[in-house]
Amino acid sequence: MTLATEGVSVAEFIEAQKVRIESMMQRRFEKRPPWPPRLEEAVRYSLFAGGKRLRPVLALTVVELLGRDFTKFENLFIALECIHTYSLIHDDLPSMDDDELRRGQPTSHKKFGEAVAILAGDALLTYAFEIISEETFMKNFQEANVVRCLNHIAAASGAGGMVGGQFIDVNGGDKPDTEERLREMHSLKTAKLLAASVTAPAILAGSHGLIQQKLTDYGNSIGLAFQILDDILNVVGNEQEMGKSPGSDQQKGKWTYPRVVGVPVAMERAWQIAFIF
Amino acid sequence: MTLATEGVSVAEFIEAQKVRIESMMQRRFEKRPPWPPRLEEAVRYSLFAGGKRLRPVLALTVVELLGRDFTKFENLFIALECIHTYSLIHDDLPSMDDDELRRGQPTSHKKFGEAVAILAGDALLTYAFEIISEETFMKNFQEANVVRCLNHIAAASGAGGMVGGQFIDVNGGDKPDTEERLREMHSLKTAKLLAASVTAPAILAGSHGLIQQKLTDYGNSIGLAFQILDDILNVVGNEQEMGKSPGSDQQKGKWTYPRVVGVPVAMERAWQIAFIF
Repeated sequence: MTLATEGVSVAEFIEAQKVRIESMMQRRFEKRPPWPPRLEEAVRYSLFAGGKRLRPVLALTVVELLGRDFTKFENLFIALECIHTYSLIHDDLPSMDDDELRRGQPTSHKKFGEAVAILAGDALLTYAFEIISEETFMKNFQEANVVRCLNHIAAASGAGGMVGGQFIDVNGGDKPDTEERLREMHSLKTAKLLAASVTAPAILAGSHGLIQQKLTDYGNSIGLAFQILDDILNVVGNEQEMGKSPGSDQQKGKWTYPRVVGVPVAMERAWQIAFIF
Repeated sequence: MTLATEGVSVAEFIEAQKVRIESMMQRRFEKRPPWPPRLEEAVRYSLFAGGKRLRPVLALTVVELLGRDFTKFENLFIALECIHTYSLIHDDLPSMDDDELRRGQPTSHKKFGEAVAILAGDALLTYAFEIISEETFMKNFQEANVVRCLNHIAAASGAGGMVGGQFIDVNGGDKPDTEERLREMHSLKTAKLLAASVTAPAILAGSHGLIQQKLTDYGNSIGLAFQILDDILNVVGNEQEMGKSPGSDQQKGKWTYPRVVGVPVAMERAWQIAFIF
């Protein structure tokens, strides 16, 4: 239950956490009652296509920093990854970002068709709420904290969070063509769910409000920094590193930090934001 | 808190309940923190486009049959309608049922475009879980029952329920071309959320398991009967009654009770099912 990080690089530590998350996810999907077969296949295809598992890795790390038994929090980790995966499937759709590759593989709608992709996303979002309200999960915590955790995650994921950010990204409304608006969009689209990933364990554990607030600030900061770096990678990265085509943001006329302030200033901002929380 | 039904027809009673639900929904959406404006507009467009409000009307009626204060259950009613509305928006999409009219008005994607329609649906689904996990709502009940209610609704809405049924409807897999498979599809697509609508109030109220089971059986029966009647109406109804074009199921090659067993037998089945619970 302690973090044995001596002699281990940050990258190695994150990789080790990721392996643990993968095995929890695999186990969970082995014991689940069956869904209609091809829908099940589409859900697994996207959920087990690799990826950084950043949100559950962060949540797992917070659980251990709080000195808690991670096995009690497993459903939370899996729920966070389900919500993230649903958002990727829907974001990739032709009417949204129209992406053909995700993590080096055909996107869900390319492989299964649009209807199945939309429903696989819907299934994953709903399943996230189903497993963090499971009786066996609830028993590990004070019930009121389970409700609060669920509320926090829903608020971060919905129209006042991730869905709202994606709406601004694909649809405009007010174009995010200034640094301030861009930051607002990133805050909704990326930072809120990342922040919820580090705050949710503390809510479940009943940690003091000040600890919850510090974790939220931290999560928002790395969320914003992460999104800026992701935008920069889309300019300077290569397909192998990213699992998708570089330059796609520019082709789609997306508003990004590199576009609004240039790559060097964007780098500086990511650095500043990551260290000022 | 009693059901004053003397001298009032069932239709009048349902209409009166519906008016109460409408006003709760309106009030809720007045006091909510703002979402990105055009996303908010799309959500309201579908949510306030009329409709029978069947799920919240049933839930409200159960609350009053249980002798409880309906004001404590308001978020549940609204959440049920949000989930139903999200399912209609996504079902209408070009890659699914490709419907242009809903309740006599252009469907969400016809009016706002596909990206906004998908996100409006995502927003409504997430919002449902957000409001039934709200602190002020939780305080009205035993916290564990709030978690159980949430879990029940999520299970009824997801891949093992409504999403799974819609998947079978649009995608086939095993074609629902026998009465047995058709009933299985309707059970997932329609009956489970209807059943959850009448069971959820009893879960929140901490009613005895036998009461919950009776309500679930009742909900499943009227759900199946309702879906058969809906299929029949699609054959024999007119556009004014339905707010959508008649014969659309046949044009789309949908599997329905009239197609599999004919209209007279379908009528008989609806009647039988509604009265055997």
